[in-house]
Amino acid sequence: MALHLLTPTHLHHPSSPLPRRRAATSASATLAHHLLPHPRLRLATAASSPRTGPRRGMSAIRSSLIDPDGGALVDLVAPPERREALRAEAEALPRVRLAAVDVEWAHVLAEGWASPLRGFMREHEYLQCLHFNSLRLPSGGLANMSLPIVLAVDDAAKDRVGAAPDVALAGPDGELLAVLRSVEIYPHNKEERIARTWGTTAPGLPYVDEAITPAGNWLIGGDLEVLQPIKYNDGLDHYRLSPQQLRDEFDKRGADAVFAFQLRNPVHNGHALLMNDTRRRLLEMGFKNPILLLHPLGGFTKADDVPLPVRMEQHSKVLEDGVLDPETTIVSIFPSPMHYAGPAEVQWHAKARINAGANFYIVGRDPAGMGHPTEKRDLYNPDHGKKVLSMAPGLEKLNILPFKVAAYDTVAKKMAFFEPSRSQDFLFISGTKMRTFAKTGENPPDGFMCPGGWKVLVDYYNSLQTEGATAPAAATV
Amino acid sequence: MALHLLTPTHLHHPSSPLPRRRAATSASATLAHHLLPHPRLRLATAASSPRTGPRRGMSAIRSSLIDPDGGALVDLVAPPERREALRAEAEALPRVRLAAVDVEWAHVLAEGWASPLRGFMREHEYLQCLHFNSLRLPSGGLANMSLPIVLAVDDAAKDRVGAAPDVALAGPDGELLAVLRSVEIYPHNKEERIARTWGTTAPGLPYVDEAITPAGNWLIGGDLEVLQPIKYNDGLDHYRLSPQQLRDEFDKRGADAVFAFQLRNPVHNGHALLMNDTRRRLLEMGFKNPILLLHPLGGFTKADDVPLPVRMEQHSKVLEDGVLDPETTIVSIFPSPMHYAGPAEVQWHAKARINAGANFYIVGRDPAGMGHPTEKRDLYNPDHGKKVLSMAPGLEKLNILPFKVAAYDTVAKKMAFFEPSRSQDFLFISGTKMRTFAKTGENPPDGFMCPGGWKVLVDYYNSLQTEGATAPAAATV
Repeated sequence: MALHLLTPTHLHHPSSPLPRRRAATSASATLAHHLLPHPRLRLATAASSPRTGPRRGMSAIRSSLIDPDGGALVDLVAPPERREALRAEAEALPRVRLAAVDVEWAHVLAEGWASPLRGFMREHEYLQCLHFNSLRLPSGGLANMSLPIVLAVDDAAKDRVGAAPDVALAGPDGELLAVLRSVEIYPHNKEERIARTWGTTAPGLPYVDEAITPAGNWLIGGDLEVLQPIKYNDGLDHYRLSPQQLRDEFDKRGADAVFAFQLRNPVHNGHALLMNDTRRRLLEMGFKNPILLLHPLGGFTKADDVPLPVRMEQHSKVLEDGVLDPETTIVSIFPSPMHYAGPAEVQWHAKARINAGANFYIVGRDPAGMGHPTEKRDLYNPDHGKKVLSMAPGLEKLNILPFKVAAYDTVAKKMAFFEPSRSQDFLFISGTKMRTFAKTGENPPDGFMCPGGWKVLVDYYNSLQTEGATAPAAATV
Repeated sequence: MALHLLTPTHLHHPSSPLPRRRAATSASATLAHHLLPHPRLRLATAASSPRTGPRRGMSAIRSSLIDPDGGALVDLVAPPERREALRAEAEALPRVRLAAVDVEWAHVLAEGWASPLRGFMREHEYLQCLHFNSLRLPSGGLANMSLPIVLAVDDAAKDRVGAAPDVALAGPDGELLAVLRSVEIYPHNKEERIARTWGTTAPGLPYVDEAITPAGNWLIGGDLEVLQPIKYNDGLDHYRLSPQQLRDEFDKRGADAVFAFQLRNPVHNGHALLMNDTRRRLLEMGFKNPILLLHPLGGFTKADDVPLPVRMEQHSKVLEDGVLDPETTIVSIFPSPMHYAGPAEVQWHAKARINAGANFYIVGRDPAGMGHPTEKRDLYNPDHGKKVLSMAPGLEKLNILPFKVAAYDTVAKKMAFFEPSRSQDFLFISGTKMRTFAKTGENPPDGFMCPGGWKVLVDYYNSLQTEGATAPAAATV
């Protein structure tokens, strides 16, 4: 896969500084003409609410710039004083064992990334998600919800639950994690779920192989209550800020714009160019303190992606080396698993960041895309992700920032926005090529990635070779 | 497939007569709690507008009970005085040849069944349809649109069109039919289209085999203008009333409620029971003149369905025999092709009837469903159709009437609503069994179907045997 970076098109038409409110709407006004923000939701964006209003004495600055979906951030973690009684209750309930990826979803739900969803989906939510990529709100409006967040159980578990209204959820090692209340069990129509989510049923979809094919033939939905915050004890838990913690941090820093960058790969200077350029343009537009949420995905990824600990170390180096400014950047882990479901998944990535307080979302070429598992082509049209995102119900209040292609400029010897008029000067460094560099110890062109970050990758691929493991086959850009 | 008829559940809880406005909302209020009608759309239902207001001197009665999607009925047929010039213009344009099923879609578009759509979908409409089953309106609201109405062209046609902004559309025999303006050509991602529409990519889906697999690898969208009303000259054109003609007819009859019944099969007494019972209950609710729109689908159907001319003859007999009341029934042909796409398709069936002026829609078990093409099971969960319909964006203003199971009551010797308490008295007459009766000349139980209608079927199956054709394999109930 070629190194295609994109930079926000509208940001390349410099405008004179605008008052903040005006600027915030002008970003979405540059989108395709069919993007017509819902009037009521637009009002909701501007409206203040008790939980997003000024706090911590920063009365002049309102940094929680966008309301969570449904108006309030869902929090499904039992308060400390309730935990003992809840655990006792859970001990007595029929028990459902979760796979590792289910625990990640429980984490996502518990912290409100999927607000207003309050637990694993019941059938009416699952059907709305599959058919409409959205959930009806009590107000009559729609919240975006493009991926089914469901819990599969097998026949034995279904029988064990029987007619019990509530069940206990246990982790892969058997430890009690949560209670699921007023449960509903319904058929897990795997073929239909896969077809409607991915737009293909071809064998070899990573999430399908990991989490659907081996899963049970029933889905169990209900209201979730988690016994205590979910931790992984992998040395990275301090990076796992909840949406509320992120909102508090944005408040603390006095952000007047938050722009989120979703990634599951190492950061090179093309990414950095894009993020820094976005900040510069936001400043030009009149924002005083735009904060970048650098938000690597931390849940399930396919086997040939760079593992999370390596990526986090690489991201640290990028900040240490000054490629990104630590003062205006928050690095945090997004706990969701990865579906590799292209246009359906990019909506989830954007929607979850609304709940974390981001009001700008950067979308690249072919987000959450990958090669077709059985044919020699991209699984999705690379443009569909940003098109679908710009039209998705429930995302009207989010400013979508599509970006232009960047590549290595062999004249300037740095990553730069691609200029078609001198295309011969630009080098598209594919993931395969980058990996080959890292594996052979050869350095990429000067200015491709900061030296500290590059060393992390070289060390990682060396360790794979030392172990005799097969080198990953897919792109890592 | 068993003969599963359903009767509106809420209609089985008799209520005292209500004022009309109240009654109209109480129907949807009995749906699942998650159906929360959009306040604005609900207002739109009740609002009067110039084109749906009283006319033809019936100032006291407003029978156009529901606004078309987008507020105005689309009409893409060139007015008579424009036709000569339009034909001359079309003669000079690059030409695209339509398949028979494309002509049916052009017909559907031209008469406004798909309002507010004004032509074959451009990519932004196609993507919204595939992902959201809806289209964004200029107001910010959503219109339902669950099936892609697209026109495929092959490489040669794409080359022929080149950069021309407008093209002429010709029928299968080469006759000029329409002009498509400001065209956009984009890739026809067949696998993804099939997966997202049907929830499966299994081989053997009738519409896929007919209209997608053999079609070109590009889609061409644009604004349609049809040279003249599309006719089939099959002796049935007088049954093909446009949405505007139907609205005029409802006005003429002074309807204060219109309930639509979609079908593509012969009407037996179970269907009739349901339709008559619906009318009776609407009267009980306070409506003075509910009109039934008996609306057989007239476009492409699979090879083993009963052909349209036979069905129309059978429907005529049902009215002649007095099973349905001609005074309060309008029989008309819905010109759409059939997708057999279950929950996705039932939305289209309902949405199109809004545009024709129906404010009540009867939905049965497993609407637009069929057997899985390669597995021994239903393709869709039979309940999903009505569940999805009740939650679909853009259908909030339509009153959905799900109905209960009916079967042959061997004690009463007639079709009756199934009573679980005396299940042994009920006979479910499968399609296979009905067909066997018709083929062998054996009569079904008394009261299953009116004799005149039954004779039409017997004659049809006899004619098949005379021709030595293979007997149809699928259910015909």
